[in-house]
Amino acid sequence: MMRILVINPNTSIEMTASIDAVAKKYAAADTVLTTLSPAYGPRSIECHYEEQIAGLATIETVAQLEAEYDAFVIACYGDPAVDACREITNKPVIGIGEASMHMACLLGHKFSIVTVIPRAVPIMEDLARKIGLESRCASIRSTSLTVLEIEADPDRAVIEMVAEAKAAIAQDGAEVICLGCAGMGPLDDRVQDAVGVPVLDGTVCAVLLAQSAVAYRKSTSKAAAYAPPGKKELVGCSPVLNRISLNG
Amino acid sequence: MMRILVINPNTSIEMTASIDAVAKKYAAADTVLTTLSPAYGPRSIECHYEEQIAGLATIETVAQLEAEYDAFVIACYGDPAVDACREITNKPVIGIGEASMHMACLLGHKFSIVTVIPRAVPIMEDLARKIGLESRCASIRSTSLTVLEIEADPDRAVIEMVAEAKAAIAQDGAEVICLGCAGMGPLDDRVQDAVGVPVLDGTVCAVLLAQSAVAYRKSTSKAAAYAPPGKKELVGCSPVLNRISLNG
Amino acid sequence: MMRILVINPNTSIEMTASIDAVAKKYAAADTVLTTLSPAYGPRSIECHYEEQIAGLATIETVAQLEAEYDAFVIACYGDPAVDACREITNKPVIGIGEASMHMACLLGHKFSIVTVIPRAVPIMEDLARKIGLESRCASIRSTSLTVLEIEADPDRAVIEMVAEAKAAIAQDGAEVICLGCAGMGPLDDRVQDAVGVPVLDGTVCAVLLAQSAVAYRKSTSKAAAYAPPGKKELVGCSPVLNRISLNG
Amino acid sequence: MMRILVINPNTSIEMTASIDAVAKKYAAADTVLTTLSPAYGPRSIECHYEEQIAGLATIETVAQLEAEYDAFVIACYGDPAVDACREITNKPVIGIGEASMHMACLLGHKFSIVTVIPRAVPIMEDLARKIGLESRCASIRSTSLTVLEIEADPDRAVIEMVAEAKAAIAQDGAEVICLGCAGMGPLDDRVQDAVGVPVLDGTVCAVLLAQSAVAYRKSTSKAAAYAPPGKKELVGCSPVLNRISLNG
Amino acid sequence: MMRILVINPNTSIEMTASIDAVAKKYAAADTVLTTLSPAYGPRSIECHYEEQIAGLATIETVAQLEAEYDAFVIACYGDPAVDACREITNKPVIGIGEASMHMACLLGHKFSIVTVIPRAVPIMEDLARKIGLESRCASIRSTSLTVLEIEADPDRAVIEMVAEAKAAIAQDGAEVICLGCAGMGPLDDRVQDAVGVPVLDGTVCAVLLAQSAVAYRKSTSKAAAYAPPGKKELVGCSPVLNRISLNG
Amino acid sequence: MMRILVINPNTSIEMTASIDAVAKKYAAADTVLTTLSPAYGPRSIECHYEEQIAGLATIETVAQLEAEYDAFVIACYGDPAVDACREITNKPVIGIGEASMHMACLLGHKFSIVTVIPRAVPIMEDLARKIGLESRCASIRSTSLTVLEIEADPDRAVIEMVAEAKAAIAQDGAEVICLGCAGMGPLDDRVQDAVGVPVLDGTVCAVLLAQSAVAYRKSTSKAAAYAPPGKKELVGCSPVLNRISLNG
Repeated sequence: MMRILVINPNTSIEMTASIDAVAKKYAAADTVLTTLSPAYGPRSIECHYEEQIAGLATIETVAQLEAEYDAFVIACYGDPAVDACREITNKPVIGIGEASMHMACLLGHKFSIVTVIPRAVPIMEDLARKIGLESRCASIRSTSLTVLEIEADPDRAVIEMVAEAKAAIAQDGAEVICLGCAGMGPLDDRVQDAVGVPVLDGTVCAVLLAQSAVAYRKSTSKAAAYAPPGKKELVGCSPVLNRISLNG
Repeated sequence: MMRILVINPNTSIEMTASIDAVAKKYAAADTVLTTLSPAYGPRSIECHYEEQIAGLATIETVAQLEAEYDAFVIACYGDPAVDACREITNKPVIGIGEASMHMACLLGHKFSIVTVIPRAVPIMEDLARKIGLESRCASIRSTSLTVLEIEADPDRAVIEMVAEAKAAIAQDGAEVICLGCAGMGPLDDRVQDAVGVPVLDGTVCAVLLAQSAVAYRKSTSKAAAYAPPGKKELVGCSPVLNRISLNG
Repeated sequence: MMRILVINPNTSIEMTASIDAVAKKYAAADTVLTTLSPAYGPRSIECHYEEQIAGLATIETVAQLEAEYDAFVIACYGDPAVDACREITNKPVIGIGEASMHMACLLGHKFSIVTVIPRAVPIMEDLARKIGLESRCASIRSTSLTVLEIEADPDRAVIEMVAEAKAAIAQDGAEVICLGCAGMGPLDDRVQDAVGVPVLDGTVCAVLLAQSAVAYRKSTSKAAAYAPPGKKELVGCSPVLNRISLNG
Repeated sequence: MMRILVINPNTSIEMTASIDAVAKKYAAADTVLTTLSPAYGPRSIECHYEEQIAGLATIETVAQLEAEYDAFVIACYGDPAVDACREITNKPVIGIGEASMHMACLLGHKFSIVTVIPRAVPIMEDLARKIGLESRCASIRSTSLTVLEIEADPDRAVIEMVAEAKAAIAQDGAEVICLGCAGMGPLDDRVQDAVGVPVLDGTVCAVLLAQSAVAYRKSTSKAAAYAPPGKKELVGCSPVLNRISLNG
Repeated sequence: MMRILVINPNTSIEMTASIDAVAKKYAAADTVLTTLSPAYGPRSIECHYEEQIAGLATIETVAQLEAEYDAFVIACYGDPAVDACREITNKPVIGIGEASMHMACLLGHKFSIVTVIPRAVPIMEDLARKIGLESRCASIRSTSLTVLEIEADPDRAVIEMVAEAKAAIAQDGAEVICLGCAGMGPLDDRVQDAVGVPVLDGTVCAVLLAQSAVAYRKSTSKAAAYAPPGKKELVGCSPVLNRISLNG
Repeated sequence: MMRILVINPNTSIEMTASIDAVAKKYAAADTVLTTLSPAYGPRSIECHYEEQIAGLATIETVAQLEAEYDAFVIACYGDPAVDACREITNKPVIGIGEASMHMACLLGHKFSIVTVIPRAVPIMEDLARKIGLESRCASIRSTSLTVLEIEADPDRAVIEMVAEAKAAIAQDGAEVICLGCAGMGPLDDRVQDAVGVPVLDGTVCAVLLAQSAVAYRKSTSKAAAYAPPGKKELVGCSPVLNRISLNG
């Protein structure tokens, strides 16, 4: 039995529920999977500013619940605060952006990301480069829909997502499609049926990879990038953050 | 229940047994895992020439047993014939080189590969570039031991592997170590205990990723790179290859 | 006359004062330069976790004072929250990491970064890749000193910084040295005198580049990556953040 | 006088004859050039699976005839088994894919490859990256024709090849066109006359480069990647392969 | 007070005057800025051949006037002879191509270059790669106009430049536009007003960066790439070149 | 019969003679090979400044003799003016730097360049990146000797070259050595005998590649980068340059 915490970094409870449903659909029978949102932050995440707020809220969530879970999934495609969370726990922390890109590489020669509004594209370009898989990324395509519009009107979302996915396959050389928003997860099968190549929801991928890391009893490397924060004073921060920094 | 076939592309039966043992140690309870070697080929694989022979033998093995398994793992770090095998089955085919590199990226900022004799290094450089993770690869370090020497003298192997892994961490910026030979798999814990960062056996990683792909019901994309071979005449080949080519 | 706000994202007031002094030494005569720290956050910034806290504190600082300045400099070498701050103002926002790397490219063929403790190295590797100048970066070298130790013992800091800078020049091909911590700024001349190549403090570089952008009357592009945040509800956040998100 | 063996790795005898003709048209007067196909394998090569079969057949061909030639050309654009063949002979082994890309770089700023059916494109993307010339490769464009259709209907092939070559020049920045299939070689002049930039047949390029290497008395480096295979037992392989492996 | 020499490497006096005007519009009040053309060379620069002639003429100009200025700007977008000029003076030498690309990175996620006739595109591709910012460069787009046609018909130039800039923003992901010819400088505001993102003239950027380097009292690194030329005999060259080479 | 002009861009007549000797040793029997130096320029070329002077002198040499030769080799490892010369003739123009790097890729997995004094290293780094083969370049190593010292003291040169070549093979992964100076050409066999991997003189490589291009009847692409210079006025230039520019 393993316990995985999926954090939806935004505060849209409906989306948290739909993320939970799709994650549970594919998690192992003996995985106890909990999905929740932080106590504060934006209703949806589409820019760097919102990533920063949601990132800190995600850190506090991991810090508070660290002892209760075996692994953590951060279910926002920009992978906010994944690096920081790796510093405050030894347990695996997996972002859904990185998870879907790594899984995509096992199923096809190149992948494309189909995401929300155009402003999200530069964030994902930076992410693909940070992960290192930019040479495997055929393209990053946007739709006209915000995160909350996808939640509100999934039929329209599917139409646009299918159109962009088809263009990615026909014009850009994509062989796998990564859904570039946690809120798109429940639509994976509908898009896949329409486009005929594997379509990946990052949350499912991240849960499966978290299960894999836990099964192999591997924790995050503490060699340098993800060593615990040094012991130091924090000014004006929450108790949970103070506890981390004062203990180092 | 899922069935995974692990193919050790060389014909060293002792290594096949040890690969099987380490893979089963971490596979899910409901995974039925079979490990075998092809009917022909070299005792070990350390160069392009041997990869070519073993690659064809691996293809024939997958072709013969395709219907009986849900996924295939190719347990040689150079990932021989992985691309080709993806063409002759819809089911996931995972190489242990790619598997360990993708998993390593989830556990640390950069990884190094510690492998057998120096001549294997260029093969792995090419592989890291092909997979696209060259910017995440801190270094590829060799030992003085051949594949069969590692099998024969694991204590000496551990000594050399630990020395190279420590150098990779201290000098090259490695935060995770990938074991660059399937035969090194049983030594993962001994090396990890000595070096203090996650040490990954590719076979375990590949089995876990194969399980993940099957759990998510994803098959290999047939969009282009891994479409089935075209229907055409083969001259002078085995019945199993003839069947593939003549049916397309 | 132009007004530039230099934000030291940590809450070490002594460092804020020393940053202010070095920045004013080179700012134009008609530049009114103010340096301050956020109201909350860590005493120093050496990891992703601290960057996340300090990043949000920096955003709030920019948001509160946006109307009063012509440009903003974020004086921490990891460039925390630079992207996010560009979304909440039209005025130029310059990070000291990017600033020093761009300036270095105008003075030599390759630069090296000499920074604090080893755990900062991966952060700067990611930054150099994000900025795009990884091919111009000869190496990133660390010392044994934390940010606060550099502040406390500048003589020891100079000794270590000179040693690493000399090694970067002799062994790595560096022709310019970037000081990888705002707290190292006051030591630029001492290191430069010892090593004989240009040594750049990022804060000075960023102030000069901010002056340049203002002089050329250029603001941040709002085409996509740095468009204003969309209008949406924030839960449980400060009034200054609420004002941004509710107005879009 | 030098002797060059051109191996057409597929078993289409008509194509072997046409490759021979175009190679002899440009070979030096004192070069004795022989072109042949292996004893077994597919009629044409368009996927990884067929490359694996043809690759092993090519290795056996080189092994059998190694003593009789001064250099070897492997006349299939994916460069199958080039690395392996370099291990079993000291003499130069040149693939036509690499040969045409290197030559193209001497005649224009960027080249495009025009090849057969779309599924060949990912193979050539991987090849361009392996060779290292991806930044010089403007694009890889496919036609609707299989290898054997090009052989059967050269007029239709020229029409499609010219269309793609013109698009590569006008839209992608190509200044030289590489013909991405040995079977396209006889059409080089017809395409060149229509598009007005140099059009290169890989076989001719490889023969000329093989001549160059022999003239300069250079053999393949045995430092690491192409050292002779280690001495070891092969199970169930042909006598010619056994001889290589048992002798090391 | 600082003195900056802007060299228009071509011999079109009208262009020299217009470069001077735009540079002075944004230079600091206490900067004494002089713009001039070399004594010989082509009327405009659009190819490598012309860059070579103009490059040597620029070197001679810098050599003759080295003592009289604090920094040098080379106002041709291909940055001819920038490297060479850095060898013959300790003072900052800034090319307008590099200057605009570095500045663009501070204002947007990616930039595009809009330049003169298509043949200039490969030159700028090479330049972006040399500078290292190819991953930040969204595209390089050409118009139908030569350098002198832009000078002669600015209205037509604006129409074409706006069309290409809009396409770069809409199709290529550009967030900032760099004007890829010194002669386009006076049109920066007209293009910017039409396209709505920052539009940068390289000459202005280079003057501002030269001011910055001088303000920070930084000179060109003499560590290796830009060390003074070795002392040696020149045959048949001008007195100013002889003086450099004979003194070393 | 073909006529190849080898231009030694410096004015050291002894070096011109030794370049001629090594080139003729390997050129085809029916190649008429002429080697000469320009009428003006530096005695040797070790920096950008000298490349600029020698580059223009090389252009004038090609322009004057264009009609008399079938191909041109520019025998200085920095490949000065190769791009420009390609604009003023349709005939192949090959630089010795690019030639040796392309040839090296056919003989080993990676190559290193062993060159003259350290200041030449950045020039060759830029060249390897421009050519696109930076991923195949294991390292660029310098000696303590200038070009003229190599000419004057070949025994000492061989000692240093062998030391650096051995280090490149043992430490950097080099499998082929490129001699990074035309003056090192006559020492190729002595270095090769000492280090045991192929050692390439660029001049020989370039002559062989020029022969190849001529044999295949290929000329330089005129699509864009190397189109003839536009027709325009030159001020104060030599008659041969005036003739090019005034005719376009």
